[in-house]
Amino acid sequence: MSNLKSKYEQYVSHMRKIQDINSSVALLHWDNEVNAPLKGAQLRGQQIATLSATAHEWLTSDDFGILLKDLFSQKHLLSENEAKNVVLSLEHFNKENKLPTSFIKKFSTAQTNAFQAWIKARKAKDFSIFKNELTVIVNLLREKADLIGYDDHPYNALLDEFEKGATVKQLDLLFGNVRKELVQFVNEIKLYGKTSEKSFLNRHYDKKKQWDFGIKLLKQMGYDFDAGRQDISEHPFTTTFSPRDVRVTTRIEEDNPLEMIGGCVHEGGHALYELGLKPEYYGLPLGLPTSLGIHESQSRLWENHVGLSLAYWKANFEPLQKLFPASLGDVNLNQFYKAINQLEPNCLRTVADEIHYHLHVLIRYEIEKGLIEGSIDVDSLEQVWNQKYMDFLQVEVPHATYGVLQDVHWAEGLFGYFPTYSLGSFYAAQFFDKASKDIPDLYEQIADGNMKNLLEWLRYHIHQHGQKYTSEELCLRITGEGLNFKYFMEYARKKYSEIYCFNKEMVEEL
Amino acid sequence: MSNLKSKYEQYVSHMRKIQDINSSVALLHWDNEVNAPLKGAQLRGQQIATLSATAHEWLTSDDFGILLKDLFSQKHLLSENEAKNVVLSLEHFNKENKLPTSFIKKFSTAQTNAFQAWIKARKAKDFSIFKNELTVIVNLLREKADLIGYDDHPYNALLDEFEKGATVKQLDLLFGNVRKELVQFVNEIKLYGKTSEKSFLNRHYDKKKQWDFGIKLLKQMGYDFDAGRQDISEHPFTTTFSPRDVRVTTRIEEDNPLEMIGGCVHEGGHALYELGLKPEYYGLPLGLPTSLGIHESQSRLWENHVGLSLAYWKANFEPLQKLFPASLGDVNLNQFYKAINQLEPNCLRTVADEIHYHLHVLIRYEIEKGLIEGSIDVDSLEQVWNQKYMDFLQVEVPHATYGVLQDVHWAEGLFGYFPTYSLGSFYAAQFFDKASKDIPDLYEQIADGNMKNLLEWLRYHIHQHGQKYTSEELCLRITGEGLNFKYFMEYARKKYSEIYCFNKEMVEEL
Repeated sequence: MSNLKSKYEQYVSHMRKIQDINSSVALLHWDNEVNAPLKGAQLRGQQIATLSATAHEWLTSDDFGILLKDLFSQKHLLSENEAKNVVLSLEHFNKENKLPTSFIKKFSTAQTNAFQAWIKARKAKDFSIFKNELTVIVNLLREKADLIGYDDHPYNALLDEFEKGATVKQLDLLFGNVRKELVQFVNEIKLYGKTSEKSFLNRHYDKKKQWDFGIKLLKQMGYDFDAGRQDISEHPFTTTFSPRDVRVTTRIEEDNPLEMIGGCVHEGGHALYELGLKPEYYGLPLGLPTSLGIHESQSRLWENHVGLSLAYWKANFEPLQKLFPASLGDVNLNQFYKAINQLEPNCLRTVADEIHYHLHVLIRYEIEKGLIEGSIDVDSLEQVWNQKYMDFLQVEVPHATYGVLQDVHWAEGLFGYFPTYSLGSFYAAQFFDKASKDIPDLYEQIADGNMKNLLEWLRYHIHQHGQKYTSEELCLRITGEGLNFKYFMEYARKKYSEIYCFNKEMVEEL
Repeated sequence: MSNLKSKYEQYVSHMRKIQDINSSVALLHWDNEVNAPLKGAQLRGQQIATLSATAHEWLTSDDFGILLKDLFSQKHLLSENEAKNVVLSLEHFNKENKLPTSFIKKFSTAQTNAFQAWIKARKAKDFSIFKNELTVIVNLLREKADLIGYDDHPYNALLDEFEKGATVKQLDLLFGNVRKELVQFVNEIKLYGKTSEKSFLNRHYDKKKQWDFGIKLLKQMGYDFDAGRQDISEHPFTTTFSPRDVRVTTRIEEDNPLEMIGGCVHEGGHALYELGLKPEYYGLPLGLPTSLGIHESQSRLWENHVGLSLAYWKANFEPLQKLFPASLGDVNLNQFYKAINQLEPNCLRTVADEIHYHLHVLIRYEIEKGLIEGSIDVDSLEQVWNQKYMDFLQVEVPHATYGVLQDVHWAEGLFGYFPTYSLGSFYAAQFFDKASKDIPDLYEQIADGNMKNLLEWLRYHIHQHGQKYTSEELCLRITGEGLNFKYFMEYARKKYSEIYCFNKEMVEEL
């Protein structure tokens, strides 16, 4: 074996070991959410901390750095994919090593404190309890941005962690569109749209029957129960132990089947991405999802473009109706389709519909950017928050727990995460538009309950590549252009002007 | 903080980290048995291997050795318990370091090969397929004994791994008793005993109802479902993630409720031991079970002395009967008690009753000792096995899969493990005898479904100590003497001569 080859294998073996630890951490977390008894939590936390620290140590060790730099200097002698792995790993290594251990410890303590204060503040519905700890987090994040380095705007350094290559410049443009076009569209619907009856969605739906129905939906999407499973947890999530074991969870509410249905299809979309990664790249960049935005594009494409489409319910409404004759016997397909697509402003992000959702993200994006650049301060945060909800959604926030304290992200020090939710939807719209052109009878296939070609398309164009391409590179390869908001807007206009029975002329008469 | 104190804390922190890894390995295994999808197995195996290797590396590192030796040299300045932890950890360290990495790798490969050959051989019911690989294992185990070192007999070195301090000398005496007294007693029962009807045990017992009943039995024993859970697996087992999270599994057969009941009570006994260890010693010797024999004494005490007693069914027969009126409506308590205690020789260890069980272990003990000392060779093993089953149990072995290939232990390189099953039962009899003296109305309490005092007794005398005392030290402390077979024999004679309605006079008339 050549020296280079042996070194590359040494690198692969080290990366796989790190992945083995990370996968074990994922299992410790998953088990905590799904199975673990109450009293085990404290020592479980310690186990997670030990394993996480070990993975970080291995990832940032000097020896590993030497190996990576050595491989990097000979990357022209490696295959294209091997070279890509090395380049991305070295990038990651350099970035991780920019943060000194002292900073990581400080930040970790701040996270713990902030999380505890956030819990307390939520209970008391009192933002002031969280203020000081959030200020510490914001200051540390600014320090982090400086340590990592950035062009143009410190927020770029934070964004990069979740969405490589994303910038304030790009997001300002995108959310500028949201601010203008989407807000306007929502107002048009409000003025001209015809709402539909949906109260039957809150009738009784037996939990066990819902569970069985959810399993069928997952199977229909192509989710492989020999390489995964579904369980119940408080909040639905997807977790990956390897590309051969990706699990989803769901939650079921007896008076709202959409909770479970939406959860299954959304998490199923995440899971299919992870299951489509190549096992031979287990532990390497080419075996990891490329970004949060692309991950979310997969869950949203399935949840919204498939799961909330008329075609999907052509395939699935009858079985659902048969399962719940008492609750859906007097409802027809069209009524059901309109009911599940009713739009409603709300002060809570997690229950937002697919349109209003982006106004919630817009607000968070503007606030995060403002906090990091210093144009907004924590003291005025609650006021800013409430004002923006009034401006963009015309909703009054009843108290901080339903307002500025509603999300855990900031308490966990996650800034730059929220925008990826919207990026995901916008990528999804653009990808789905292209898939519909590549598979002309896609909607007919979906209406037949046949998702095979769609899944194949996603696997071929997106899943298999791992981190070989960034989000933007992927988007360009697939659709011939970078992320473009117009696809989402077109999708929204077409779908909702039909559902709400209004047209351009009515609006123009204004 | 004094230098010594800081060093002791360094030691504790290192041990806890090792325990964190070991607990994660336990979760990876547990999840494999209970949850994991089929296709995830291969990469899961790799994750287990990485974590296990890491724990071993940390346990045997030079730096850790220096720390341990340093602490050992100052142990007179530590508290009694601290000193004990250090002494035991250093012992363990020295033992682990006696095996060079080259040996561990060789042995690991041999285990993998032997396991695969064993699977193949079982399928083909052909021992010859397993012969070569078993020979490799036996030779390596002899090498291992030499590397570790031993007094008197190489088998002692292997025994010590599972039952510290156990020796061939002790076991020869014990199994000499089994060979003489127990074999004779089984013959007496055969000649003079009156068997009872038990076919009603194979009527239909609904799985869900059995499950609920099992949960109640576990709760009755004092098993805390906030610090554990029960799941279904192919073979029942107990697994520990921390003294605050100890889980059991069971299996349920529709035509045999004893499978589930026995499983719950047996695994519950194991779990209560682990839950009784002191959390402040998590990761340290004083926080770990002292030996396999003592572990098994806890499961067997509950399974046999409690779960198969008349008192236990005074508390539990009526609820069981109410649950299954169609299957048990025509059965009374006494009939049920006799039915569940019928003795029957069989060629399979895992289905053996509490008496014949020890003849199975006797056979394995004699063979293991013979293989290690060289008085039995692998070539003649099947013949020796079958002959012993004829001699001691008067059963004919139909084929190798039901004979010499029935257990996985040898394929996994585990020699010296089997005797701990019998040691467990014998310790259990001696402990239970003492507990009955300390709690004079113990049977009445059990008949009331009240196990609190028994559990308290076990916690106080056994569970809390961890490895502070060896099996024999523990036995001496509790009962005033070392392990003595007579307690088991007395228990067996008293119980089964009643159940089988015969007495000494009848035997002596022979």
